[in-house]
Amino acid sequence: MKTKQGCFITFEGIDGAGKTTQLTRLARRLDTAGARVVQTREPGGTFLGDKIRAMLLDSENHMMTARTEALLYAASRAQHVEEVIQPALAAGHIVLCDRFVDASIAYQGGGLQLGAQAVAAVNQFALSGCSPDLTILFHLPIATARTRLAASRGQAALDRIELRDDAYFLRVQEAFMALAARDPQRFRIVDAGLEPDVLEQEIHEIVWKYITQE
Amino acid sequence: MKTKQGCFITFEGIDGAGKTTQLTRLARRLDTAGARVVQTREPGGTFLGDKIRAMLLDSENHMMTARTEALLYAASRAQHVEEVIQPALAAGHIVLCDRFVDASIAYQGGGLQLGAQAVAAVNQFALSGCSPDLTILFHLPIATARTRLAASRGQAALDRIELRDDAYFLRVQEAFMALAARDPQRFRIVDAGLEPDVLEQEIHEIVWKYITQE
Repeated sequence: MKTKQGCFITFEGIDGAGKTTQLTRLARRLDTAGARVVQTREPGGTFLGDKIRAMLLDSENHMMTARTEALLYAASRAQHVEEVIQPALAAGHIVLCDRFVDASIAYQGGGLQLGAQAVAAVNQFALSGCSPDLTILFHLPIATARTRLAASRGQAALDRIELRDDAYFLRVQEAFMALAARDPQRFRIVDAGLEPDVLEQEIHEIVWKYITQE
Repeated sequence: MKTKQGCFITFEGIDGAGKTTQLTRLARRLDTAGARVVQTREPGGTFLGDKIRAMLLDSENHMMTARTEALLYAASRAQHVEEVIQPALAAGHIVLCDRFVDASIAYQGGGLQLGAQAVAAVNQFALSGCSPDLTILFHLPIATARTRLAASRGQAALDRIELRDDAYFLRVQEAFMALAARDPQRFRIVDAGLEPDVLEQEIHEIVWKYITQE
């Protein structure tokens, strides 16, 4: 097997789409195939990022403004990029990341209506030139995603972001679609409503083809 | 007495220059004179901002990258502006703030060498159009400031930022001076080496003249 060196792959989509489960499955398969994989997530992924993550998700922090939220995500990302992602890519690993910059553009830019361009600009500062090579976007109707989330966790356990209303998630979804439409080379949209095993196989094929191509 | 409505005044300068003491003295004098004063500080100034402040100053967070630091300051500032400063200004108060956006441009832009322009751009996003009307810049030779800090706290108690070396503080000082030179209408430079009572009087005169002018 010959895979690309230092490949950066992100999973994106609204909450409840099953990204995290599928990312773990993909990591296991790539690992079994002999690829050197680093699995990480946002917000978080570092000691400091996890502290920021806790702040972002704590439903007690209800007074947090939209701009503060966007800047905290960017801060966590800057740390993640320099401490984890760039060193892993430099070492030739495949980095699989659960959410990245597109999530900020969709959630804060679209969902919180700060504007995609303003949020993208702040993130340019955070990224130091680091951007994903391939992005798997999980598509699922909002209603289905909400039902899945509620069923899996129970209403009481939803975090600060998950507690927002349907109109918010619809804006997030639309922002993700706009990003994908603008960059069809990088984005692959998958149907998150598929059976998990079927979806796993589909994602594996997309990624395998990408990392083994010349 | 007739004072300006909704006036935003910031105190800036390197650590150990005596800003905090002087800000409290000024607040007391303005308050005694019948002005409605809100005294605040950065990083911090809000419940959430204080959590971010603790993260920024904790010397255990030695792995924090320069970009993360700049974004955390901006996040704290965004919260501070929307939650405290803008409402106070809208209510016609005089807001006295210990450090604000110039500190980020000087410390992270100059000191950490991220560049004044890049840090200013990120902060534009945080500020939502809110900027100081008058800025008192405390000037003091680096060596004096360092001696004062060490004497007042003891080496062990210095925070993550204060622990940096002289070259860093020299870049910070230079960045402050460059900002002042670019905006002489807003900046007033005071000699932080003066006797505290003399300095208090000088600052009071500057501010009083400013807030009572037509």
